[in-house]
Amino acid sequence: MASSANQIILCKAAVSWEAGKPLVIEEVEVAPPQAMEVRIKILYTAICHSDIYFWEAKGQSPLFPRIFGHEAGGIVESVGEGVTELKPGDHVLPIFTGECKDCAHCKSEQSNMCELLRVNPDRGVMIEDGKSRFSIKGKPIYHFVGTSTFSEYTVVHSGCVAKINPSAPLDTVFLLSCGFCTGTEIIRTCKPVCICNELKLDFWFLFQGFGAAVNVAKPPKGSTVAVFGLGAVGLAAAEGAKFSGASRIIGVDVNPNRLEQAKKFGVTEFVNPKDHNKPVQEVLVEMTNGGVDTSIECTGNIQAMISAFESVHDGWGVAVLVGFPGKDDVFKTHPLNFLTERTLKGTFYGNFKPRTDIPLLVEKYMNKEIELEKFITHSVPFSEINTAFDLMLKGEGIRCLIRMEE
Amino acid sequence: MASSANQIILCKAAVSWEAGKPLVIEEVEVAPPQAMEVRIKILYTAICHSDIYFWEAKGQSPLFPRIFGHEAGGIVESVGEGVTELKPGDHVLPIFTGECKDCAHCKSEQSNMCELLRVNPDRGVMIEDGKSRFSIKGKPIYHFVGTSTFSEYTVVHSGCVAKINPSAPLDTVFLLSCGFCTGTEIIRTCKPVCICNELKLDFWFLFQGFGAAVNVAKPPKGSTVAVFGLGAVGLAAAEGAKFSGASRIIGVDVNPNRLEQAKKFGVTEFVNPKDHNKPVQEVLVEMTNGGVDTSIECTGNIQAMISAFESVHDGWGVAVLVGFPGKDDVFKTHPLNFLTERTLKGTFYGNFKPRTDIPLLVEKYMNKEIELEKFITHSVPFSEINTAFDLMLKGEGIRCLIRMEE
Repeated sequence: MASSANQIILCKAAVSWEAGKPLVIEEVEVAPPQAMEVRIKILYTAICHSDIYFWEAKGQSPLFPRIFGHEAGGIVESVGEGVTELKPGDHVLPIFTGECKDCAHCKSEQSNMCELLRVNPDRGVMIEDGKSRFSIKGKPIYHFVGTSTFSEYTVVHSGCVAKINPSAPLDTVFLLSCGFCTGTEIIRTCKPVCICNELKLDFWFLFQGFGAAVNVAKPPKGSTVAVFGLGAVGLAAAEGAKFSGASRIIGVDVNPNRLEQAKKFGVTEFVNPKDHNKPVQEVLVEMTNGGVDTSIECTGNIQAMISAFESVHDGWGVAVLVGFPGKDDVFKTHPLNFLTERTLKGTFYGNFKPRTDIPLLVEKYMNKEIELEKFITHSVPFSEINTAFDLMLKGEGIRCLIRMEE
Repeated sequence: MASSANQIILCKAAVSWEAGKPLVIEEVEVAPPQAMEVRIKILYTAICHSDIYFWEAKGQSPLFPRIFGHEAGGIVESVGEGVTELKPGDHVLPIFTGECKDCAHCKSEQSNMCELLRVNPDRGVMIEDGKSRFSIKGKPIYHFVGTSTFSEYTVVHSGCVAKINPSAPLDTVFLLSCGFCTGTEIIRTCKPVCICNELKLDFWFLFQGFGAAVNVAKPPKGSTVAVFGLGAVGLAAAEGAKFSGASRIIGVDVNPNRLEQAKKFGVTEFVNPKDHNKPVQEVLVEMTNGGVDTSIECTGNIQAMISAFESVHDGWGVAVLVGFPGKDDVFKTHPLNFLTERTLKGTFYGNFKPRTDIPLLVEKYMNKEIELEKFITHSVPFSEINTAFDLMLKGEGIRCLIRMEE
């Protein structure tokens, strides 16, 4: 592969020319990586709702033509000047949010909201020079969240690349780049079934499941956890609660059909708010003799957020917000609910530091501590990427694997 | 003292016969302690606003005649059946909220909200038999929050008694029974000067300063803390922040005269919201390059609570609510403020477990790790207790020591 370094690569990419129109597989030019960048050969990718959201361009300024995609796995083809921690041949996951390891957030043990490389869906170019690395006959094609993985080759800032164990199966662990950690799938699966009435998303990426449970909520062993919304993020949150040792995991969703699938992810009980004529927080408080120890809100619905907070036990209860709210939503509660020793916090990307933590998650998968296969329900070759879009738009399955090499 | 055990003791107590009327020093009968109770000879006490609040009886059902007082130090005179951890002669602080060591809250490492002995200002009798231990010529006089320390002798549930180092000076460490940990003084000092417009308290005891800082906010060494409200609780919070190693402690109050006193408690900078024509949280965010690491809200004013939360840094900021809100207050914020990794929590009695932690705080005082003397600004003999009430009503000083033995 060294032969292609410093050369423009011609390869196939799925280009989005217009909002909401099918992607077109085009031959694109991919420029060599500049300082602190790497060029990656993508092997597997998938669609998140966030791709759909910006492709539909209903809620934000459209930026086209553009190459979407941010959940993927691949191999480093070449690296730019100054890149010392990555080399050609490394197995990597490109991540939509970065870790420069130098800013106050990266230096904080708590935060993963890197100042330099925090996700920015409004930017369609590289931060090094404000230019795109993609073009078609010299005409620039915009990037998407610094990853643009719907291309056989892409260029990514080295701070947005997690280097992983090369023996890990990329066609599975690629999920760790977004879906498992952030669970954006919730938005799709949410639409027809969950307790949110309408998702007014303007900031697509703030969905976290597994990390919300293991990094933020941290349910003690033997404790009781409520998960609001049993879409992919809620399922990942349930998986995280199970992983943390919670013994009672109560799934809250308006769709009773979700229980069977949810059981596979650790959910032990099910509450359908529609079955009760009082607020669901009161139902949970009664079921649990005072409240759940931990709740994780994965719908983005403001009323569900309030319910999730008000369903935790006084004295020690912790509620974690994961689902992304609407622009005009207001979280409201009586402050006494805090003063009786309840805690409310939110999370971004499950509080995972991408370069530091994702390789460790890959190891957990390799040690069979976490399961990923059950999230992959479909598979198509790259040439059929529009089928994967259709599946997502119809709300079928959880994840559709897109294989770049047919 | 053993001679008085099992006998009714005749002694002086300051009895409140009517709402808002001066206390009257009367000779009262104090019955022997029943099962799990102890009778304590009070040596030092002081007035908290909570005493004033229930004495004024403006916001709750009046319960008279009653013996107020809950911040005190004394010596065990005798113990009732089943009491094994206390004996006559022990130096103790009676505490208005208990620790049974057996309920889910006591067994939780996080909570101090004992199910059996949680403070209940509406109850004027002992939980053992629903009766009072005080009487005048056989006519019962009500207790107050299980302590009633405005009496030379009082009877308290043994779960509400902290046994302390007998070499500690009771005329100083008695402050640890309430003021220092919970800082109810804020309500009094607050009235003329701090940022709350009006305090509509219906639940008087939820004020915590030092504990809010060291047990809940836990500011890292070298970090920046904002303290909203520089009454006694805010000062105790600043002291706690200093004790925890915070290097920058920003006091927020509308009274500029408070800065000088606040400096003694560790406050390094002062912000007067009245000096700015934008919300104080914006001022703090600008001053601190993105927000303070920790904020502690000690006023009870709902807008100050919102400001305190919105002034913490994204990624790692923690806000702790201490000041007690009004009945109809609603905490409102955009949920995105949580999703960008901010935490909000509240505290009761500084999250101290009274029997477990108060003795340890006494040791910290003995080791000169915390200062208490500076909180005591006045001193009167028991016979002049109404002078102490007047001082409090006028908002003069911080604490007036009441000496039971003249």
